[in-house]
Amino acid sequence: MQTHIEPIARMIEQLAKLPGIGSKTAQRLAFFILSMEENEVRQLAEAIYLGKKKVHACAVCGNLTDQDPCAICTDPRRRDDVLCVVSDARDLLAMERTREFRGRYHVLGGTISPMEGIGPDQLRIRELVTRIGRSEVKEVILATNPDVEGEATAVYLAKLLKPLGVKVSRIAHGVPVGGDLEYTDEVTLGRALEGRREM
Amino acid sequence: MQTHIEPIARMIEQLAKLPGIGSKTAQRLAFFILSMEENEVRQLAEAIYLGKKKVHACAVCGNLTDQDPCAICTDPRRRDDVLCVVSDARDLLAMERTREFRGRYHVLGGTISPMEGIGPDQLRIRELVTRIGRSEVKEVILATNPDVEGEATAVYLAKLLKPLGVKVSRIAHGVPVGGDLEYTDEVTLGRALEGRREM
Repeated sequence: MQTHIEPIARMIEQLAKLPGIGSKTAQRLAFFILSMEENEVRQLAEAIYLGKKKVHACAVCGNLTDQDPCAICTDPRRRDDVLCVVSDARDLLAMERTREFRGRYHVLGGTISPMEGIGPDQLRIRELVTRIGRSEVKEVILATNPDVEGEATAVYLAKLLKPLGVKVSRIAHGVPVGGDLEYTDEVTLGRALEGRREM
Repeated sequence: MQTHIEPIARMIEQLAKLPGIGSKTAQRLAFFILSMEENEVRQLAEAIYLGKKKVHACAVCGNLTDQDPCAICTDPRRRDDVLCVVSDARDLLAMERTREFRGRYHVLGGTISPMEGIGPDQLRIRELVTRIGRSEVKEVILATNPDVEGEATAVYLAKLLKPLGVKVSRIAHGVPVGGDLEYTDEVTLGRALEGRREM
């Protein structure tokens, strides 16, 4: 019985390592790639490999960058006195999309998660403390996810950073804009009530 | 506002060219790739590019292969007198998985589809006729898909090949094994009735 020849089998095997891509999808992708022009496939493979090779964590903030320090750390128009702490570079981009924050960032590289064996030492927390000590930061905004690990990380950081004499704040929990009270879970609604503001 | 830096944007753009991968999924894949070891990413990129570079259509049958002629064309244990015609290499693999067919194959490289501008000249039909003329083929089994294009292609080939003095057969239509009569469409059920066999 003929099965996949070695180069195709290897392509499928490698594609199936990507998240959300099972062996059936990997097979479909592989045959699509085989039907592409060689030039297009070279561009795809190069974009993958060179992307990985060029991109690294910014030595200052931990954001993904192809220069060092990154474009945000070197932007003279940004404020140096506010630091927003996020788990990863994707959360940083989400914050940037709001166009509301004009300070600097600090990317932790994850959240504290004893279940996955990630403690404070596996995150860029030591760098954060050093950075606050050395700079003119006055406020640290904790923008980790509103889930168990994100909350635990925020609580841990608040305890650690307050003694350094900076204001520590946490992004608000509440009803999402465009959301529906009827379908909002009670914890979120409770937080929304707690965080109410005078109009 | 910080958006994706160029190497990441390019990776996302290239991944989003793959079928079934939208920009959100491409972004997720790109960040996963950035979190992989450089060595693993090299393996992925190489498997994609070298796979495409090494694999080509067999000069004899049109099957995807990294040698020429392919392993099926050169297998001495296979019968030379039966030829199974399929649309593409994936259908060939599906036939192989039955472990029932021990003849040779001919891969058309598609099906006749006037809507997509694919006529007989865009398929490996001239090669099929030449091949039958030169070899000891006695039967040609048409195993194109049981859809409109596949049927049209089969009808076209039957007309073309019968005058060459070979037996031309078509794979049977009928109720899929494990299927349910109640939910079988009437065309399929009609064909199943038409193709009934004495037990």
